[in-house]
Amino acid sequence: MNDVKLRIDDELSSFFSSKLDEANDPLSVEIVEMIRDFTMNGGKRVRPLLIIMGHDLFSKNDDRMLKASIAIELTQTYLLIHDDIMDQSDVRRGKPSFHVEAENRILKGIPGSKRISENLAIVAGDLAESYSHEILFDSGLGNMEVLNASDELAKIVETTGYGQLLDIYSSISEDFAQKDLMRLHLWKTAKYTIEGPLMMGAKLSGKYDGLESLSYFGYLLGVAFQLHDDVLGLFGDEKVTGKSIKNDVNEGKKTLLMLKAIENSTPEDASFIRKCLASGDVSDEDFEKLRNIVRDSGSYDYSIEIMKKMIEKSKEYLKTVEGNEEIKEFLMWFSDYIISRKH
Amino acid sequence: MNDVKLRIDDELSSFFSSKLDEANDPLSVEIVEMIRDFTMNGGKRVRPLLIIMGHDLFSKNDDRMLKASIAIELTQTYLLIHDDIMDQSDVRRGKPSFHVEAENRILKGIPGSKRISENLAIVAGDLAESYSHEILFDSGLGNMEVLNASDELAKIVETTGYGQLLDIYSSISEDFAQKDLMRLHLWKTAKYTIEGPLMMGAKLSGKYDGLESLSYFGYLLGVAFQLHDDVLGLFGDEKVTGKSIKNDVNEGKKTLLMLKAIENSTPEDASFIRKCLASGDVSDEDFEKLRNIVRDSGSYDYSIEIMKKMIEKSKEYLKTVEGNEEIKEFLMWFSDYIISRKH
Repeated sequence: MNDVKLRIDDELSSFFSSKLDEANDPLSVEIVEMIRDFTMNGGKRVRPLLIIMGHDLFSKNDDRMLKASIAIELTQTYLLIHDDIMDQSDVRRGKPSFHVEAENRILKGIPGSKRISENLAIVAGDLAESYSHEILFDSGLGNMEVLNASDELAKIVETTGYGQLLDIYSSISEDFAQKDLMRLHLWKTAKYTIEGPLMMGAKLSGKYDGLESLSYFGYLLGVAFQLHDDVLGLFGDEKVTGKSIKNDVNEGKKTLLMLKAIENSTPEDASFIRKCLASGDVSDEDFEKLRNIVRDSGSYDYSIEIMKKMIEKSKEYLKTVEGNEEIKEFLMWFSDYIISRKH
Repeated sequence: MNDVKLRIDDELSSFFSSKLDEANDPLSVEIVEMIRDFTMNGGKRVRPLLIIMGHDLFSKNDDRMLKASIAIELTQTYLLIHDDIMDQSDVRRGKPSFHVEAENRILKGIPGSKRISENLAIVAGDLAESYSHEILFDSGLGNMEVLNASDELAKIVETTGYGQLLDIYSSISEDFAQKDLMRLHLWKTAKYTIEGPLMMGAKLSGKYDGLESLSYFGYLLGVAFQLHDDVLGLFGDEKVTGKSIKNDVNEGKKTLLMLKAIENSTPEDASFIRKCLASGDVSDEDFEKLRNIVRDSGSYDYSIEIMKKMIEKSKEYLKTVEGNEEIKEFLMWFSDYIISRKH
């Protein structure tokens, strides 16, 4: 897995070198460098790996897939840059988010810097999006295969967009229930993290039909991935996850852990949870109390239970996929990894 | 030309109907409706027409091209929605811009409305972008043709992005000369308005090489289009153009008319022009004086001269294109139309 990650990083690196060679305007050069740095900084490269696995399920390993697979990392760069503007996040993977970096690096002292830095970030996201389609085209794989994968990529962006809308809706509506949350995870996380990459890979192998079971596998695993992320976000080890443990609460994230704890606890505890989520800056003491409520209300166990059931179910679907057995085994292992990883 | 426009509108309309059928979340439905209304409102459909002409230059007319051609209108919707956020424009084609409409229609009275409405607009733009690739895929044209056109579409977005960066740079830099302005017009306007659509059309016809002359034609015509737009923006008839005649000046647009007038006039007049561009709200009296300086300094004539030379040169390139003579004649006529239109 680590070997593939390094090769994917090499592909990304050489892609950006060629983009930098093409750019001939000082600000363009700087922005392309920033898109490069943003993309190269961290990232486990899980999504390109899944594209390659989706391909290798149905066809023999092909080096051109490395190039094709980075399309999803460029799409992710696009989505994350825009996401950080929308959430007004200052930090991404332990470094300044794109618009903050733009302000620091390009706009020092210029009036209206905040607005202009966000504008630069909107354009940078749009550029990364165009790159993702271009690299697929340049992979050298078959026309029919690339075309179908490119369409899948567009559908990934579309579905993530609807997920984003649901997320915005959740922030402005009181009436946001568990079933809305599951749809949010399906659309905003599962599609672009797991299901979409697997579908892209399958299509790049020339398989266009009979992908339902693999699709269900991907969606279930994707939602489990998000639920585990939320657990790490409340109970993980800051030193390993690399983000502040209070982050999710301070962002007011209505996770399954929170929704279920609100549902299962006394009115006082429920309103305490709501207060913490609305505070924007929860104290150490309140944070500890909040975690205790989540545990004592059975909400923590509930999330873990749902996650495990999803992984079980996802494996059942995977078993019915007629594909390379070694890759299936890897994906089985990968499912367990998803809900046991520490970061 | 009007007949084609109506058929393009029909295609757009049926595309959005099917997208609305698919959407099953209230906010998604509302946003898709808003993207539809934004796209359907006005627009001369020049870009899809040019896609069809680019195709018909090299191949016989094909009804599937109508569907493929609307990809560029969806891309335009994407670019305009993001553009209006960046420029903080309240109005687009005589109606509220997307983020303003989102605030009016969805967010009435909710705290943080302005930020949330811009977030909705960022996502709406991203959705429109995904639609543009999907509709090309669904056109039913050949794989190789669609794939090349889809890559061209990505390049259009990329080039427009670099143009946008140059535009942002022009707003924060004192040192912005005529040659920068010409590059800005090439990247931000000519590519996505004229050259790109013609290239997409040619590629959809199966012609991938020997397109240099057509490309030069498109770029020259595209820059002339922008120069004429700038002339209309200062000397046009508000009733016909549909926008306030002071708009460009109040936005501080450094057009060729302005750059040349600054270059050719006395230090007092030059600083008067700069003052008007920085004012944000020029008075009637100052606006009249500004127009007189532009005329008296020879800047107006200079712009007209350059435009005419570009059109002449563009026609020379077009003559050397080996393609359908009727379409070439139409494009010759179209070139003259571009610099004589009143809106």
